Amino acid sequence: MYDRIKGFRDFYPPEMAARREVIDTVEDAAQRYGFREIGTPALEDAAMYADKSGEEILEELYSFEDKGGRDVALTPELTPTVARMVVARQQALSKPIKWVSTRPFWRYEQVQQGRFREFYQTNIDVFGSREPIADAEVLAVAADALDALGLTGEDFEFRVSHRDVLGALLDTFEADVDRRAAIRAVDKRAKVEEAAYIDMLVDAGLGIDQARQFDEVLVAGTDDLGAVREFATSETLDAALDNLEAVLDAAADLGVSEQCNLSLTTARGLDYYTGVVFECFDSTGEVSRAVFGGGRYDDLIESFGGPPTPAVGVAPGHATLGLLCQRAGVWPEESIATDYYVLQVGDTRPVAARIARDLRERGHVVETDLSDRGFGGQLDYADSINSETVVIVGEQDLANDEVTIKDMASGDQTQVPVEAFPGAHDRPTFDDFA
Amino acid sequence: MYDRIKGFRDFYPPEMAARREVIDTVEDAAQRYGFREIGTPALEDAAMYADKSGEEILEELYSFEDKGGRDVALTPELTPTVARMVVARQQALSKPIKWVSTRPFWRYEQVQQGRFREFYQTNIDVFGSREPIADAEVLAVAADALDALGLTGEDFEFRVSHRDVLGALLDTFEADVDRRAAIRAVDKRAKVEEAAYIDMLVDAGLGIDQARQFDEVLVAGTDDLGAVREFATSETLDAALDNLEAVLDAAADLGVSEQCNLSLTTARGLDYYTGVVFECFDSTGEVSRAVFGGGRYDDLIESFGGPPTPAVGVAPGHATLGLLCQRAGVWPEESIATDYYVLQVGDTRPVAARIARDLRERGHVVETDLSDRGFGGQLDYADSINSETVVIVGEQDLANDEVTIKDMASGDQTQVPVEAFPGAHDRPTFDDFA
Repeated sequence: MYDRIKGFRDFYPPEMAARREVIDTVEDAAQRYGFREIGTPALEDAAMYADKSGEEILEELYSFEDKGGRDVALTPELTPTVARMVVARQQALSKPIKWVSTRPFWRYEQVQQGRFREFYQTNIDVFGSREPIADAEVLAVAADALDALGLTGEDFEFRVSHRDVLGALLDTFEADVDRRAAIRAVDKRAKVEEAAYIDMLVDAGLGIDQARQFDEVLVAGTDDLGAVREFATSETLDAALDNLEAVLDAAADLGVSEQCNLSLTTARGLDYYTGVVFECFDSTGEVSRAVFGGGRYDDLIESFGGPPTPAVGVAPGHATLGLLCQRAGVWPEESIATDYYVLQVGDTRPVAARIARDLRERGHVVETDLSDRGFGGQLDYADSINSETVVIVGEQDLANDEVTIKDMASGDQTQVPVEAFPGAHDRPTFDDFA
Repeated sequence: MYDRIKGFRDFYPPEMAARREVIDTVEDAAQRYGFREIGTPALEDAAMYADKSGEEILEELYSFEDKGGRDVALTPELTPTVARMVVARQQALSKPIKWVSTRPFWRYEQVQQGRFREFYQTNIDVFGSREPIADAEVLAVAADALDALGLTGEDFEFRVSHRDVLGALLDTFEADVDRRAAIRAVDKRAKVEEAAYIDMLVDAGLGIDQARQFDEVLVAGTDDLGAVREFATSETLDAALDNLEAVLDAAADLGVSEQCNLSLTTARGLDYYTGVVFECFDSTGEVSRAVFGGGRYDDLIESFGGPPTPAVGVAPGHATLGLLCQRAGVWPEESIATDYYVLQVGDTRPVAARIARDLRERGHVVETDLSDRGFGGQLDYADSINSETVVIVGEQDLANDEVTIKDMASGDQTQVPVEAFPGAHDRPTFDDFA
């Protein structure tokens, strides 16, 4: 007997049915906006990750040397892969490029609630537009997906910020600040003690008073961007604030203003973000980590050797999204559904097979006996797979050219001429013949 | 600039759309028979493969030691994984267990036409039934899937054989035969010179005359199983022949007799098959390898530490299936489809956004401008994404409370009151307003 690997999961049919419903709902929201599905490899050149984030990132990945001596890694995220794909066909692809896909990713990290070593994300990205409407469309897709799942503004909020607001604010301090380190500190703000957070800002180069001042303006600016404009001005800060306001305006036009809240203390951990960033949070705070996040990464394609290509995206992760749905009571029922069970008694297989075939041709889920069971055993099995209707094809009935239609919810049944079933009915039930 | 890894593929939207259509069609065929989707991990304990096939198998896999010192392998096939999952929940799962899933697998092997290092399969398996109807149902699902793809009996055939017919026949020779080696020789029969094939049988323990005799009876038995019964009798041979005939009879009841041809020279390469085996071949011979195959593997679950659990399955591979579809001219068109483009001119975004939202709520694919393009640029873009209908929301029209509906195929257009669009129409087109 073998065990599955820690942090990896098996999904049996009832749970998988619920997961599939959620995945389909999220993908469908993106597809309605014209995002097109792509297919991507599970392995990439390990240098693709090490070059950006340093060799030490490989310790957190499933990286190894393949039989041909290549250093490869199981993809921990999709963004570098789609950047590579955009660069590879940069001439042929018309802009904007709008892509969606759902697949597993892998990281060798600590397993905890909602965090696994194999985890599934739906990635939704726009390449080739730097307009605020592109950021807003990504927010709108995410909001539509959550809405279609049955979640409301009571359940979640998008906290929206802007990397350049943080960066330009930091530049207004007379200090030699490591901007990346300071932004990472902001990203950790809600996860660590205040003193530790201030220490991180000081480590990034701010004086202790500057760190406190910086945090105060982030908090004040979350209520009102005017507070930031009053605190300092610079060309980049003004441009960033204007861009952030334009994105929120465009989001309002797209009908998602209620879900979006300004939050300058939101930073996102990844280094490659450049403009608007946002995170989805559980409004009740029961799912304490960000459910998912996204943002603008205008420099990544160029850093992969492509032409300057602005980009913005979001990537709902299905583990935390599932926790949010469960908390809000909208996780789909974990069960399997069957339209018909065709119950065969005696030497009636050709007729039973014909009926099953006719029902399947109409698109229904139809099971028949594979286990040589008797009447009672088959009825129990039909019940166990939640059959709505059972069609009983028995020798005695057939002698009268009839079959029996049984409604499993009520237990009601009736005989119908075998030639009349399914007849002209698209989805015949007991009621059609009673 | 990074390259993708050899033997791995990127799928851009037009090709992915065609692939998705084929995958959905195959899965849908299985789901109509009540096969339920499962989700499975990409990595497994490497011992799961090495224990069955020897350490040398790991050279053909993407196997490595993870950061925690585990010997792991990227899954080269699904069967060991589903066997592990059946064993893990053997008490809770009601029989028969009918599972389907589509996902990538990985093997470190030579790349050639229709063979990649990352390849996609739809696995369809039944556990817990040893009845011939279960084998027949698996054949019927495969036949229904190919039929739904537009393939006919002119395009493909299933060559059906039985492992125990081969085994029991070998037992009738007075020789010390390595059965696995002999069966592997039969599997190679069509791929090597006749002399090499006979040599392989001799290496497996048959005398040279016995090898020729064995092959003659396989060929004669392919026309008529009676020839096998005449050549030799034994309890296991008779039982195997009876089982093979019962499966073909059941397949006929399920309406797939035309697609199934007896072929005792079909053996399947994998060691774990125990009963009926079959391979799908291109009837024209243009796709020279088997398109896919399947069969019965009654001993695998027990060898994984579970209770005796008969099993039968099939696994269409999407690379060779794609070649067959292309050869037969039924590969789906590689293009993207868009229902509506909402073209916005001037300061009309709130109205354009409302119209786009209403159309998306009706389930349609709707794009709008993300690139601040003018009228002509937007119309070109709408054309490039194959929009069926363009809704033009212009300032002048709006001053008259109208929008323009343009049919992209004909170029015809008409004005309609903005409040009437989309109105009560589920899928409004130019024709609804002309």
